[in-house]
Amino acid sequence: MDAVRIALLQGRAEPSAEAALDWTERRLTEAAAAGARIVCTQELFATPYFCRVQDARFFDLAETIPGPTTERLANKARELGVVVVASLFERRAPGVFHNTAVVIDADGTLLGRYRKMHIPQDPGFEEKYYFTPGDLGYRAFTTRFGRIGVIICWDQWFPEAARLTALHGAEILFCPTAIGWLPSEKDRIGAAQRQAWLTVQRGHAVANGCYVAAVNRVGREGQIEFWGTSFVADVYGETIATGSVDATEVVYADCDRAALEQRRRTWPFFRDRRIDSFGDLGKRFLDE
Amino acid sequence: MDAVRIALLQGRAEPSAEAALDWTERRLTEAAAAGARIVCTQELFATPYFCRVQDARFFDLAETIPGPTTERLANKARELGVVVVASLFERRAPGVFHNTAVVIDADGTLLGRYRKMHIPQDPGFEEKYYFTPGDLGYRAFTTRFGRIGVIICWDQWFPEAARLTALHGAEILFCPTAIGWLPSEKDRIGAAQRQAWLTVQRGHAVANGCYVAAVNRVGREGQIEFWGTSFVADVYGETIATGSVDATEVVYADCDRAALEQRRRTWPFFRDRRIDSFGDLGKRFLDE
Repeated sequence: MDAVRIALLQGRAEPSAEAALDWTERRLTEAAAAGARIVCTQELFATPYFCRVQDARFFDLAETIPGPTTERLANKARELGVVVVASLFERRAPGVFHNTAVVIDADGTLLGRYRKMHIPQDPGFEEKYYFTPGDLGYRAFTTRFGRIGVIICWDQWFPEAARLTALHGAEILFCPTAIGWLPSEKDRIGAAQRQAWLTVQRGHAVANGCYVAAVNRVGREGQIEFWGTSFVADVYGETIATGSVDATEVVYADCDRAALEQRRRTWPFFRDRRIDSFGDLGKRFLDE
Repeated sequence: MDAVRIALLQGRAEPSAEAALDWTERRLTEAAAAGARIVCTQELFATPYFCRVQDARFFDLAETIPGPTTERLANKARELGVVVVASLFERRAPGVFHNTAVVIDADGTLLGRYRKMHIPQDPGFEEKYYFTPGDLGYRAFTTRFGRIGVIICWDQWFPEAARLTALHGAEILFCPTAIGWLPSEKDRIGAAQRQAWLTVQRGHAVANGCYVAAVNRVGREGQIEFWGTSFVADVYGETIATGSVDATEVVYADCDRAALEQRRRTWPFFRDRRIDSFGDLGKRFLDE
């Protein structure tokens, strides 16, 4: 990418996987027409956010990768000449399911997958029940339009995940997300929660001198009000594009490799990391 | 600390170390009277920012720790019953100098020191010439008013430094700083630079569920215009106190252990860190 336009598909739960795919294909076509060359879906775009409760029937929503959904997306990617990053519920084996993102190149090639490493578990976000923690580590993928990485939702709170993906050479870090407010929290700390979510990811952009693009869903599902606000942060952590809090939409931003190069020359953090001193990052806590 | 008021001494270069110490003692007295229990200086508070140029005479500015300055600060800490965090130019041995922060407890005890781990080197900030990189790692100190950590200036851009200090139990992370604009950059990217500086540290507060208190200097020294704006971020990364861009002043904020506890229960990132997957953080870059 010398300069590349990216598009974030901020959607809502659709009545069926078929409807979600239809919506996504229409938005992919729209985004390509608007000049976007890399397009990313929200987290688990093909399904509702089923993790609100623990129910074994929802494992039926998972699908193999590659599978019918990635095939349809690959066809669309090839037809439009765009890179597609899509978040899916992966069925790997009986009893082994992952929260996985695929990266499909602009010629339809499935370049690979990233499996969500950090899995949350709290009331309304019962993900440790569904998702086996990722075992592929952090990755980046060289696409026709730039080298990109993906981390997924809860991962976005962990600077280690962003750092490792950037060390793999990612110039743009995509973060498909499903985050929202619970009614018990929204009035009291809802604004602080959303700001914190924005801040920590903007911080990743600063610390790593890369672009960060978070794609969240909108709409109410059960008690959860997904807060949308998909955004792109530039290499100084400035928010250069933001979606609304409650409407489906396509959020666009232009990312510029020259700006990335210049930022990393001005502030060469990768030059100075004290890699000899980071061993304890592999510890849980450093008790007195 | 159940709740503790902290104070940041945002100063400027004084004509002499004696004048800087006088100013600091007056501000310590003022801060204590205002209820502050932990007080932190800017980086290298006793000297100008001599790192603007490489000149061996400036090694004369360094002092031993403990030494006359820490003794004076310890006396003041004991007299006022406040914890003092002070940033000094440490003379360790001939040819071994560090950029060091000391933590003095409210009874005057020198609890220990932290030596700046990440050393910058760019035009106007010629620190690799002066400062031997720290060899003590990241630390936290149990003071009368809470467990605190210190990282210094360039360290603040590295999430690893903040994380490791927080893993040592720091509830408040102090960051003495000397950062400013160069005339060649201010108009073009000055606003973005200052925002990035704020953002990445607010991000540390979010990622670690701790308070972050950055103390910067003000005033023009040579070409550098130090941008002040000392601030405190709360456990959601919200800026709860900010200093001006150009005036010396004491910036106050109240930090609350109950809020920290609650934040980490709501978002238990320390529970979920994938410590099995962080080994490559010890690598310089992960080439394709």
